Amino acid sequence: MKTLNIGLIGTGFMGKAHAVALNAVSSIFDLPARPVCELLADADLARAKSRASAWGFARATDDWRALVADSRVDVVDICAPNFLHKEIALAAIAAGKHVYAEKPLALCTADAEEMVEAAERAGVKTLVGFNYIRNSATQLAREIVMRGEIGELVHFRGRHNEDYLLDPQKPHDWHTMRAMAGAGALGDIGSHILNMAEFLTGQRITEVCGQLQTVIASRPEADGAGMAAVENDDQAQAMLRFDRGLMGNIETSRIAAGRKMGLAYTLTGTRGAIVFDQERMSELQLYRADDATGRRGFTTLLAGPEHPDYAAFSPAPGHGLGYNDQKIIEVRDLIEGIFGQRSLYPDFREAARVNRLIDAIEKSDKTRQWVQVAS
Amino acid sequence: MKTLNIGLIGTGFMGKAHAVALNAVSSIFDLPARPVCELLADADLARAKSRASAWGFARATDDWRALVADSRVDVVDICAPNFLHKEIALAAIAAGKHVYAEKPLALCTADAEEMVEAAERAGVKTLVGFNYIRNSATQLAREIVMRGEIGELVHFRGRHNEDYLLDPQKPHDWHTMRAMAGAGALGDIGSHILNMAEFLTGQRITEVCGQLQTVIASRPEADGAGMAAVENDDQAQAMLRFDRGLMGNIETSRIAAGRKMGLAYTLTGTRGAIVFDQERMSELQLYRADDATGRRGFTTLLAGPEHPDYAAFSPAPGHGLGYNDQKIIEVRDLIEGIFGQRSLYPDFREAARVNRLIDAIEKSDKTRQWVQVAS
Amino acid sequence: MKTLNIGLIGTGFMGKAHAVALNAVSSIFDLPARPVCELLADADLARAKSRASAWGFARATDDWRALVADSRVDVVDICAPNFLHKEIALAAIAAGKHVYAEKPLALCTADAEEMVEAAERAGVKTLVGFNYIRNSATQLAREIVMRGEIGELVHFRGRHNEDYLLDPQKPHDWHTMRAMAGAGALGDIGSHILNMAEFLTGQRITEVCGQLQTVIASRPEADGAGMAAVENDDQAQAMLRFDRGLMGNIETSRIAAGRKMGLAYTLTGTRGAIVFDQERMSELQLYRADDATGRRGFTTLLAGPEHPDYAAFSPAPGHGLGYNDQKIIEVRDLIEGIFGQRSLYPDFREAARVNRLIDAIEKSDKTRQWVQVAS
Amino acid sequence: MKTLNIGLIGTGFMGKAHAVALNAVSSIFDLPARPVCELLADADLARAKSRASAWGFARATDDWRALVADSRVDVVDICAPNFLHKEIALAAIAAGKHVYAEKPLALCTADAEEMVEAAERAGVKTLVGFNYIRNSATQLAREIVMRGEIGELVHFRGRHNEDYLLDPQKPHDWHTMRAMAGAGALGDIGSHILNMAEFLTGQRITEVCGQLQTVIASRPEADGAGMAAVENDDQAQAMLRFDRGLMGNIETSRIAAGRKMGLAYTLTGTRGAIVFDQERMSELQLYRADDATGRRGFTTLLAGPEHPDYAAFSPAPGHGLGYNDQKIIEVRDLIEGIFGQRSLYPDFREAARVNRLIDAIEKSDKTRQWVQVAS
Repeated sequence: MKTLNIGLIGTGFMGKAHAVALNAVSSIFDLPARPVCELLADADLARAKSRASAWGFARATDDWRALVADSRVDVVDICAPNFLHKEIALAAIAAGKHVYAEKPLALCTADAEEMVEAAERAGVKTLVGFNYIRNSATQLAREIVMRGEIGELVHFRGRHNEDYLLDPQKPHDWHTMRAMAGAGALGDIGSHILNMAEFLTGQRITEVCGQLQTVIASRPEADGAGMAAVENDDQAQAMLRFDRGLMGNIETSRIAAGRKMGLAYTLTGTRGAIVFDQERMSELQLYRADDATGRRGFTTLLAGPEHPDYAAFSPAPGHGLGYNDQKIIEVRDLIEGIFGQRSLYPDFREAARVNRLIDAIEKSDKTRQWVQVAS
Repeated sequence: MKTLNIGLIGTGFMGKAHAVALNAVSSIFDLPARPVCELLADADLARAKSRASAWGFARATDDWRALVADSRVDVVDICAPNFLHKEIALAAIAAGKHVYAEKPLALCTADAEEMVEAAERAGVKTLVGFNYIRNSATQLAREIVMRGEIGELVHFRGRHNEDYLLDPQKPHDWHTMRAMAGAGALGDIGSHILNMAEFLTGQRITEVCGQLQTVIASRPEADGAGMAAVENDDQAQAMLRFDRGLMGNIETSRIAAGRKMGLAYTLTGTRGAIVFDQERMSELQLYRADDATGRRGFTTLLAGPEHPDYAAFSPAPGHGLGYNDQKIIEVRDLIEGIFGQRSLYPDFREAARVNRLIDAIEKSDKTRQWVQVAS
Repeated sequence: MKTLNIGLIGTGFMGKAHAVALNAVSSIFDLPARPVCELLADADLARAKSRASAWGFARATDDWRALVADSRVDVVDICAPNFLHKEIALAAIAAGKHVYAEKPLALCTADAEEMVEAAERAGVKTLVGFNYIRNSATQLAREIVMRGEIGELVHFRGRHNEDYLLDPQKPHDWHTMRAMAGAGALGDIGSHILNMAEFLTGQRITEVCGQLQTVIASRPEADGAGMAAVENDDQAQAMLRFDRGLMGNIETSRIAAGRKMGLAYTLTGTRGAIVFDQERMSELQLYRADDATGRRGFTTLLAGPEHPDYAAFSPAPGHGLGYNDQKIIEVRDLIEGIFGQRSLYPDFREAARVNRLIDAIEKSDKTRQWVQVAS
Repeated sequence: MKTLNIGLIGTGFMGKAHAVALNAVSSIFDLPARPVCELLADADLARAKSRASAWGFARATDDWRALVADSRVDVVDICAPNFLHKEIALAAIAAGKHVYAEKPLALCTADAEEMVEAAERAGVKTLVGFNYIRNSATQLAREIVMRGEIGELVHFRGRHNEDYLLDPQKPHDWHTMRAMAGAGALGDIGSHILNMAEFLTGQRITEVCGQLQTVIASRPEADGAGMAAVENDDQAQAMLRFDRGLMGNIETSRIAAGRKMGLAYTLTGTRGAIVFDQERMSELQLYRADDATGRRGFTTLLAGPEHPDYAAFSPAPGHGLGYNDQKIIEVRDLIEGIFGQRSLYPDFREAARVNRLIDAIEKSDKTRQWVQVAS
């Protein structure tokens, strides 16, 4: 069996999720190649070594540049902080490696476009980790839309709300610094729902009209020495126009009390509707206007083997996929994409669209009017 | 016991709902006066008589002007088509009657303001039937907000979506005619959520940025003779700014497949959140950020005797209020208001605000930018 | 229009619910006769008079015997305490009146049978107030079963759990006294689910195997003078066999923490299933095994005008029925039944079955084995 | 780092779930030893080899006896058909191996007890795969009960219903054969809810009264040659008494239309209640009778890092665990148990109780009365 050697940079939340997926994917899916955990990088060498041992990586390093340059690494997997994405990705591309990066791709559109151009010039494969689009129920939603089962779309509503910064005593950190994070909630999690809006509808957002707000104006410095100004949005919302006339809106917040994984959407069509909430990630609500009179209503479809990518996890319906399972599907896509068995989505080019959408929403907030999105 | 003689105009959906409430209210609440069903008007005299007999009205007429002028009528209750609201109300006010009118108050702001001025000059009492704000769970939501139980509000999301015009074969009728209905979904049901946005938050909307869409451009004429252009919106959405800085948005649609009574809202505060859906009208979801770690989540409060106005319907919790019960509460408010026991909300002045909001959203849609709302 | 004069005995929870329904029913439904609130009895004359005034009764009395004997009373409506049902009903029957009684019909089977015999000998009409079977969603459930839409039934699960006696400090009162209430939870609310089991399935329960438990053995005397032993069950459960082989079970409790109106059932058939919870009384969940692969799931049917008895309350779907609306339907049935337009269900004969089922469950609890139910 | 060599027998649904867990567990949890996929057995050698390659097993065999005897195998992991459990386990024990077996432990109590005795005599460690008790929300339920947060338990209701044999055309196979499966639904999935009843309550079931039914009496032979009699139950139910007086009931079915992973329970206590449904496996509903008046209701606790074993999967709340994650926790328990860091539950002794409960329910069905359960 072929192998594909992975060099993973970062050992935080996302680094671990990638490690889990890399270890599990071969037992879930039949793959064209087996991913091998070759090299793990973390700025803290002791941590790099300890995690490498636990996560089955052959080697560890504290130097991401060494990893990028390592001849035994086929794919550079970037789970480093967002502000490093660009530098690492450009180095990896220069070294001819395929790149698998966490979202958001970059802190701004200009950076993202530089990365797209480099990757396409070098001809390397890229994939960005918008993992929620891999969830079986969400893949099913797209399938139902694409097959026309709910008619023509007339409205899209999306949100990605969480409350991880609800507590005003939570210190100023990279999330709340412009230079480290770019946009706030809009960049961190709003990026998911913006990507998903195009994924689900199969349409391009052409115009936006948005509004951002920093509710908690300052936060304690991490070292306790006074307060620091929050430099990006706590919450944002936007109205959307899509290229085929579809109307929609999105919301995002990091201070939405009570929402833990509040990615949700409603797709309304001329003959039906779909409702989804990631907090119940294995359920999709489907309404079909053509069902019999008196027997119409929202049907709860519980993810099962007849739905996309579920059967590999369990032959029995309703047994439930979890967060990490989405990453396993993503890694399957990565491997199949590198081996030419599928197109990679979203690659850098597609992921850069999300940066363009974020920038347009921010511009709209400043100009207080609709803004066109560069295609 | 005192009595209050009601003259009701209209025998449709709303006329019946008012009749039911007038008949039931005295057995539910202890009132300062008993409403008496004195006179019922419908353009069709046979129907007026038949409904008067069934609904316990002493007399019937086919002439609303006669009803307005009738010396035994204390309150003119307007359930006639929207385009007649202004003319009837002005006549009733001129005759010195109190006026209880269905929403929307008028087809446009100018008309609404003329009605406000006339009523205030005459010193008659007025009430407009935004009945959903009477629901026990929604009164509870306002109470929770006002008591600061969820902290300071940071976001309001509201929608009122239904699908009564989803079928493109449904003929062109008053709903789809500008001169008969004014705005489309935005006026017919969007008016509810706009009123409720201010009711629930206790704040004024000062700026809006909206978008309207007529999805089904033309519909069959009622007589089958060809197609007629739809003259108002099938769906609308708007971003909102409130006077104390609160950010929010609303949506409304009459073609939202699957939504039958889709009035819903989310109130997010600095210490909690409230979620409500009128399709489950006796439930309120409450999240309190200050609950114990590991025991926090949305709590389903089932309307019971400890909540506003429920106990009069049942001493036992969870037994469920229905649509008509909201109208019973509204009629209780009307009677108590006329007898000086409470202030009437929304009276014509408050209801005219809804027209101002609708007009501002329509203007924003045309100018593609934010629009200030006259206070 | 014909009239039907009602004499109502009792002004508590149920007395009020009946009064509300009597006042509202003519404006909801087109009826063969208009019910007239003729005479109201309560042991407390002042209360009788005050409620008569509020509820529109022409006259009041503190003597139920006078009411029963009153020549202007056509129907005796019994909302008096359970232990009085038998005496009042027998007197009313002897006076040739129709009888409309609250559930449970009697404290034991022997009493119930005496009442059945008397009513049938006298040829008067009878109806017992098992109001939950009137709810639109529950009528729909029966309709779906009867039409075979879920195939042959293979299992019935029902419960009626509430928590009105959860607090051990709640004093000993009629609920907890054998001579006043008969069985405890099993009689008070279990009676609803037992009646409903036969209503929904269209089958007779032929054998039961039950278990009762008094969890809170004693309660404070109402006057504070010490503790009194609780004389009937706090909770009960039973397995059921129906005449056509169907298997099932029921539960009931008055100490089920968190349940306010916890009447719920699941009907499972060879081709589908139905799930209902009275706390969401306007929703019915329907599963159809014959729906398309990948599109099967429980569909939430929201009560609307296409469902039984809903349209009279609102022409618009999803607007919601409430507790009192069930009583309005019940009163409609009463009037139509008395005028020969429908058969009355459950009449005394049918309601007496519930007493037989309760007795059999109690006997089974004592003998620790299955018990046959007399047909 | 220490290692623990696993020999896995079986490559079906359960074999794969174990393989996934063995591959993933080290990247999720910090363990005292790393499990090594040493040897994989399947009666079909080609399949054994192909799965060994995909799942990362070093070697493959078509002879489970060779696996049991293999000196490099530390733990024998039994995912073979149920009727083979006993023979394999006894051989593994005889070879001094630790045994990790799927449920049900055995086809009958006698077999189970023989296995318990052998394991205890040999001093090997054992664990049986009742994986649903590992789910974070269910561990939380037990924690809430044990801490007395809902007071003293007064009722337990459990069910495990699925519909995998709903279709009467599904052929006769091992599920429906007594000699291969033992009891039907009661053994296959009812075993889960019986184990869980004791796990959640911390109490022993001492008496049962049950009822079994084979609804689909015969099924097509797998080879199409006629029909074969179904030899065990399609559905079963039982009333339960626990040692400290608790009352309860369970249901199980393999023909429960619409239920896919319908393991659900309600725990009712004197001060609160818990409701859980495995189809929403990351949610627990909690009611606390001591919450403030008017603010009481069922709270949806969404599994998060503050709940048992969740944080290892994600530092962020509400992100969702899946079916396979339960097996990962189970394998963590196995490894820690073998290394003395925790007691193994349920081991063979505890799992044998489930067989005793099943046998008692079957006996009760035959004798039509309550049956004591041997302790």
